Amino acid sequence: MLHWLKHYRSHQLPGDLSAGLVVAMMMIPQGMAYALVAGLPPVAGIYASIAPPMLYALFGSSSTQSVGPMAIVSLMTAAAIGPLAAPGSALAGVLAGQLALIAGVVLLLCGLLRMGFLANFFSRPVMSGFTVGSVIVIVFGQLHTLLGAPLPHVHLPSAGLGAGALALLVGARWYLAALLRRFGLTTVAANIVAKLAPMFVVLGGIGLMACTSLAAMGVQTTGAVPAGLPHLNLAASSTHWRPLLQPGLLIAFVVFLMSMSGAQALALKRNEKLVSNHELIGLGAANVASALSGGFPVSGGLSRSAVNFAAGANTPLASLITAALLAVALLAPTGWLALLPLPVLAATIIVAVLGMLELDILRTAWQYDRGDALAWAATCGGVLALGVEAGVIVGVALSMGTLIWRASRPHIAVLGRIAGTEHFRNIERYPAETQPELLVLRIDANLFFGNVEAVNARIECELALHSSARQLLLVMSAVSSIDTTALLALTELNQSLQRRGIGLHLAEVKGPVMDRLRHSSLLDKLNGKIYLSTAQAYDALHQACTSAIPEK
Amino acid sequence: MLHWLKHYRSHQLPGDLSAGLVVAMMMIPQGMAYALVAGLPPVAGIYASIAPPMLYALFGSSSTQSVGPMAIVSLMTAAAIGPLAAPGSALAGVLAGQLALIAGVVLLLCGLLRMGFLANFFSRPVMSGFTVGSVIVIVFGQLHTLLGAPLPHVHLPSAGLGAGALALLVGARWYLAALLRRFGLTTVAANIVAKLAPMFVVLGGIGLMACTSLAAMGVQTTGAVPAGLPHLNLAASSTHWRPLLQPGLLIAFVVFLMSMSGAQALALKRNEKLVSNHELIGLGAANVASALSGGFPVSGGLSRSAVNFAAGANTPLASLITAALLAVALLAPTGWLALLPLPVLAATIIVAVLGMLELDILRTAWQYDRGDALAWAATCGGVLALGVEAGVIVGVALSMGTLIWRASRPHIAVLGRIAGTEHFRNIERYPAETQPELLVLRIDANLFFGNVEAVNARIECELALHSSARQLLLVMSAVSSIDTTALLALTELNQSLQRRGIGLHLAEVKGPVMDRLRHSSLLDKLNGKIYLSTAQAYDALHQACTSAIPEK
Repeated sequence: MLHWLKHYRSHQLPGDLSAGLVVAMMMIPQGMAYALVAGLPPVAGIYASIAPPMLYALFGSSSTQSVGPMAIVSLMTAAAIGPLAAPGSALAGVLAGQLALIAGVVLLLCGLLRMGFLANFFSRPVMSGFTVGSVIVIVFGQLHTLLGAPLPHVHLPSAGLGAGALALLVGARWYLAALLRRFGLTTVAANIVAKLAPMFVVLGGIGLMACTSLAAMGVQTTGAVPAGLPHLNLAASSTHWRPLLQPGLLIAFVVFLMSMSGAQALALKRNEKLVSNHELIGLGAANVASALSGGFPVSGGLSRSAVNFAAGANTPLASLITAALLAVALLAPTGWLALLPLPVLAATIIVAVLGMLELDILRTAWQYDRGDALAWAATCGGVLALGVEAGVIVGVALSMGTLIWRASRPHIAVLGRIAGTEHFRNIERYPAETQPELLVLRIDANLFFGNVEAVNARIECELALHSSARQLLLVMSAVSSIDTTALLALTELNQSLQRRGIGLHLAEVKGPVMDRLRHSSLLDKLNGKIYLSTAQAYDALHQACTSAIPEK
Repeated sequence: MLHWLKHYRSHQLPGDLSAGLVVAMMMIPQGMAYALVAGLPPVAGIYASIAPPMLYALFGSSSTQSVGPMAIVSLMTAAAIGPLAAPGSALAGVLAGQLALIAGVVLLLCGLLRMGFLANFFSRPVMSGFTVGSVIVIVFGQLHTLLGAPLPHVHLPSAGLGAGALALLVGARWYLAALLRRFGLTTVAANIVAKLAPMFVVLGGIGLMACTSLAAMGVQTTGAVPAGLPHLNLAASSTHWRPLLQPGLLIAFVVFLMSMSGAQALALKRNEKLVSNHELIGLGAANVASALSGGFPVSGGLSRSAVNFAAGANTPLASLITAALLAVALLAPTGWLALLPLPVLAATIIVAVLGMLELDILRTAWQYDRGDALAWAATCGGVLALGVEAGVIVGVALSMGTLIWRASRPHIAVLGRIAGTEHFRNIERYPAETQPELLVLRIDANLFFGNVEAVNARIECELALHSSARQLLLVMSAVSSIDTTALLALTELNQSLQRRGIGLHLAEVKGPVMDRLRHSSLLDKLNGKIYLSTAQAYDALHQACTSAIPEK
């Protein structure tokens, strides 16, 4: 915690200062925009950009992660509170805070329980499909704001303003940096100025509203943004606690996955090590802080963190500077923000999220593994057809399904002896000798509930193929653990073999596995023996019969 | 499908007849009782016992599985429709059918998509914890019916009748069979008569209500049971479609798990092979049939199937006979059923579910693996504290968590050469020679999203320990698959190593893995070479340095 402060070097300050300033200038329009996506008053987006990054700086493990409002998390917030409160209402604000509190507490608990391994949960195709689906939903959700009227209507002055802003932003995003470089700016400087384009477009929009009669023509603006810092907010709605629980869990999950994947991409560039359990605690503290300071669920994200990184952030001090600058902005007069035209804000949202529309992973998956491409499509389709929450659940189900399917296919080899040696090998690959009355199987997986049935089925199948076998020897050299379910299944297998007059023997049981088995009744009941080596077992079980006819 | 009918032998008929009769006599009170648990009119429980077992007989794969109303599934039905409709109302019936339809379609789809591997999803401790929690919830839910008044009140005549029935049923369950054996009955006959005790107690209760003034004293009865077969029911409520989707999914999941675990226990005794995909289709068809014939979600279950098995069922014909007998019972006058006292029905429910209260698995887990005992307790506690639906979700989360945790700990060995041979072994176990400039790692797991981060972290950790290494050789002999996420991670690892001036080489890549990699750009970009064997790679990468100091 704060170890970066102890080792702070003065040469790191310029980078942190410039990154802090750039991100703050980016956050004013983006924070307000994402508050609108979440169905909240614009100022909530600025509140959510002050306390959360400060708390993350205290507890998080990434030096460049920038925490605050994020498009997809805002969309999920809107989906959760939409059915319970009108957009922009006081209740919506209370529920959004409550949702951040639930997500924050869940993240903190997961961090304290050291559950950072959950970051491995989604495959990248599933994550990418989820992101692309969400981006499409967000863009369609902004169209009526951009055009000033619900589809298929158009309010021409709003639509003109929105389309103009969109054109400028698209131009800035894809061409401005190149243009600035031609005017002699360095690549880094040119990229940073290009990233600030939304701020300039927003200022231009405010100027237009102030100087023209667009407002009188019906172009909507954000309205008054209250000045001053957020108050400590302890409001909560006990009646809406229950319906927010599941969305809060899903939001916590998405916040963690999105933040980790963004931070990992940057950590890789800097050869920096992320600690997933610290990330959980940093993100949890940030969300609790957001809940208590009038904000809504916040997240790290690749787009904002990448700007922070590119603008030179060396340490979390950059985020503290961002937070301080935003607080100063709220303490200064905020009247000018009230004139911000909503179509321009919608344009900034659309261009910001279009930058997340990354189809490379789909292309790679399509060429490399059609199953992964299908998972991409199913998750993206789930978001589009069923909504963003259901999309997360579809992603979870796909990941779970893949995991169980993998777990349910353990490798098991029938072993034979390499003639004249003590070595035993897979008879499918080596010319090894076997005995008709003895079946030797090597189980190449830890035994647990996910593969117990598959192991059982394979054993029964091999017993049916080797119907003369009276002894079954399981070689346990690759089994490092046996869980309770597998223990019960082994006990039942032992009973079943006993009824059929077949002996069950074990060989090469690892030390820790053996210690554990001594706490069970399996060893007492075992209808056979335990051997140190496969060769010993083979010799002992090799009865009168000395014939060595390779089966198969 | 119906292959049992083709091979039907006349000696199988007596067993099927007796099992069909016994299960039918058991199902009249139990079906009505479970309908009450589900918050539906009692007759729905009989409807749900007619068409579903017939459909299961057509498509299922177990010869002794008996499908119909089941306590835990009824509890889940009540939890799903309770917030949407009053118990016993017409809407409740419509929603229960809709729920069965959703569950049935989900099961059918899973069967057609060959997703039977999902049966491996729950560990036995999680399953047992879920069952025990549900049993406690059901027992507490029946107390007010047993005592004739909401707690802490007691309606004495009802409570007396209920307590009497409870005492008789408990006595019958634990002592009647022994008593009958002493009177000369065979063990099988004595057990079957004991299983019919609920029917006799129910008949006694009806007799008491008919002959005494208990009804006038306020003892509640089931009320009129409409005679005649169920009509084809196509009613549906489009407004409640959405809130029933998630409960329907969870019910499908529980139906499949409960049915499979029950059927597997019996299949083991008979050395019969279950086909999980056929089970999914059989259970799905049974639920769709239940939805269309006035029923509610149905399931196989250990208790009912075990009775069917014990009473001699040889083939699914037993279930067809049960269904036919129940249909005949509905065609006969049903006036007598109207007098069935609810406290007696509550007593039959309590004794039936207490039989599922099996604590052996908890004891085994406690002695053998505390983690599994904790999973038991968490699932049971989840059901008790948060309800039966949340209990399933807790169980899913625990299973998922365990799977990911296992997947996130792949085995990776640092290899060295056994001096004078071509063999390479783990340097922690064998005195093998290594070279300071070459790090050889063998990855003992398929690479996929669940372990990609762990593999990456381990590689970085070993590179930090072997800081003089300029070449990294990954031995892929145990890697049978690489998914898209792992491919992307390998590509990034390659870039990162290239930046640091370290070569990345692969050896012993399996044929199918190599074929797949040719569809990616990794091989072109690889900052090193691909070798057939580890020894070849070792020799090729063995530069000027011939020192063979074992590192550690």
